[in-house]
Amino acid sequence: MGSAAFEKSVTGWAAQDASGVLSPYSYQLRETGPEDVVIRVLYCGICHTDIHQTKNHLGMSNYPMVPGHEVVGEVVELGSSVSKHQMGDKVGVGIIVGCCRSCGPCKTNIEQYCNKRIWTYNDVYTDGKPTQGGFASTMIVDQKFVVKIPEGLAPEQAAPLLCAGVTVYSPLAHFGLKVSGLRGGILGLGGVGHMGVKIAKAMGHHVTVISSSDKKKAEAMDHLGADNYLISSDEAQMGTAADSLDYIIDTIPVAHPLEPYLSLLKVDGKLILMGVINQPLQFITPMLMLGRKTITGTFIGSMDETQEMLEFCAEKGLTSTIEIVKMDYVNKAMERLEQNDVRYRFVVDVAGSNL
Amino acid sequence: MGSAAFEKSVTGWAAQDASGVLSPYSYQLRETGPEDVVIRVLYCGICHTDIHQTKNHLGMSNYPMVPGHEVVGEVVELGSSVSKHQMGDKVGVGIIVGCCRSCGPCKTNIEQYCNKRIWTYNDVYTDGKPTQGGFASTMIVDQKFVVKIPEGLAPEQAAPLLCAGVTVYSPLAHFGLKVSGLRGGILGLGGVGHMGVKIAKAMGHHVTVISSSDKKKAEAMDHLGADNYLISSDEAQMGTAADSLDYIIDTIPVAHPLEPYLSLLKVDGKLILMGVINQPLQFITPMLMLGRKTITGTFIGSMDETQEMLEFCAEKGLTSTIEIVKMDYVNKAMERLEQNDVRYRFVVDVAGSNL
Repeated sequence: MGSAAFEKSVTGWAAQDASGVLSPYSYQLRETGPEDVVIRVLYCGICHTDIHQTKNHLGMSNYPMVPGHEVVGEVVELGSSVSKHQMGDKVGVGIIVGCCRSCGPCKTNIEQYCNKRIWTYNDVYTDGKPTQGGFASTMIVDQKFVVKIPEGLAPEQAAPLLCAGVTVYSPLAHFGLKVSGLRGGILGLGGVGHMGVKIAKAMGHHVTVISSSDKKKAEAMDHLGADNYLISSDEAQMGTAADSLDYIIDTIPVAHPLEPYLSLLKVDGKLILMGVINQPLQFITPMLMLGRKTITGTFIGSMDETQEMLEFCAEKGLTSTIEIVKMDYVNKAMERLEQNDVRYRFVVDVAGSNL
Repeated sequence: MGSAAFEKSVTGWAAQDASGVLSPYSYQLRETGPEDVVIRVLYCGICHTDIHQTKNHLGMSNYPMVPGHEVVGEVVELGSSVSKHQMGDKVGVGIIVGCCRSCGPCKTNIEQYCNKRIWTYNDVYTDGKPTQGGFASTMIVDQKFVVKIPEGLAPEQAAPLLCAGVTVYSPLAHFGLKVSGLRGGILGLGGVGHMGVKIAKAMGHHVTVISSSDKKKAEAMDHLGADNYLISSDEAQMGTAADSLDYIIDTIPVAHPLEPYLSLLKVDGKLILMGVINQPLQFITPMLMLGRKTITGTFIGSMDETQEMLEFCAEKGLTSTIEIVKMDYVNKAMERLEQNDVRYRFVVDVAGSNL
């Protein structure tokens, strides 16, 4: 199996420092191990996390860094023990490429919660070398962390599903909310939020978008198919909607009050936080206790959930709303993303770019 | 059925104002309706809420107020349609005596979350008259809100189960935690906390008591049968115990940090809040997201759960740890309770007191 002559020297676009500016960078892939899949990258989505990482917002960045963790490609080489994939398969890679395989989460196939998970980029692989992401001609990834893109799902459409998509799919599936007829709220309408509306609608939910202004109302209702739109500062609207939602997916990435949203939940309702916010959020206990309400948060999804979500999206004909760009536009795209000037996700046409 | 000659004029001990001091007070019970059960009170537990209510800590108190919502008694009269109870039955009444019967929570038998629930005292009944609690010779209660005290459970032992007991039993049962082999934490060792240790042990859990000092260590381990004792200010101990608990029942009634306790939870662990705290509590989202952890709170339990809990306690031979007092000691007992000077619950021997 596989082609032994495969070229291990690849070109990616890397940040060299905390300016975050990406430029061409050449590096070597590891030798193909028995479990490895070598992937020619076709498309790679741009996630907000890529900005935090390339600009060292979390103080943990190592350079040169090739970002990108919403990767769709084609299998071009297979390790000797790979059974899950075949040459030419369309496949996807998300935010992690390794885990310890022996802890509680790993043993129950929720490897995204393994404390030794290995990030797709800006991490160190088991061979001691840095991991590099999907803004590159080629990646090499252990088969466990490679999912199959189902027939009928366009590769560029699939890219944002591998992070934004599974991020909203996972809590809905895990918390028993993949049931038609529920009433859901989506708070924040960015890359994750827009996917939340689409996935919740595909699950048969009545979906309310909650936003600070009416700016996105037409977009939410007409383009994304939301059933209702609530302006969070409108007390009358919020009062009328009290006790009406089974869940809210809260994608706001900065500190914000929770009480207005907790009050929208029914008894047993769930507020599911998706934004990594290092400033404290607040609540008062009676808001939870008197309705057995829950505040929780989840983190991407497992490999099993990722595969399941892709199949769900293919079956439902669900597409993401993207703007496709070439690699030489990536710096401009990240600048625009930082200003929320994208509807809703940039996807880089990696194979169609001159790296 | 029933004795038509039953005396409707009763004596209770009531607070007359926000001093909270109780003294004898005579009032009339309503006529026995078809669904009503008349109960001669035997014992009534004293709960922290009784202090808040009698002293008007919540600003919602009406006087005269006969407190008491952990009531055990004997059926002395039955309404014409009562099928659930018989004359002479030992029965219990908890914190609520009415609900709307038509909302979502009522229809799914979680009437404790009905927005129109009627409190056992300091509330207005459907006839427009004030409700009065269990520090009285007699009570009249709709059969729906009367539970049967199982054979083998002493009435004075059962009293604290009707509030403190079901308060910890309900979340364990509801959240799927009534499974042997789990590792639980109990934070705070008062009336609810001590019951938490006993009920969790009876469910076959490994129980860790978490406290701010080592003062209660011998008590927790030797008397209550806890398996482990953690001092929350001891960083080394807390670090060793990180990621080890399936749930924590947090009974602390004042504002406190949540992070030390969230860090003790395993992936999918639940922090269950039991204290009504009107000052905000804080957390940061990565603490939840990176372990799919949950913050929730519950409020007493349903009538079904109360009955189930009593049967569970009878079957397991579980007893509460109480100090029995007469009614003329009730003011002193409430003073001592306010100073946490009780091991662990006062129960008033109402029938044995000269009201």
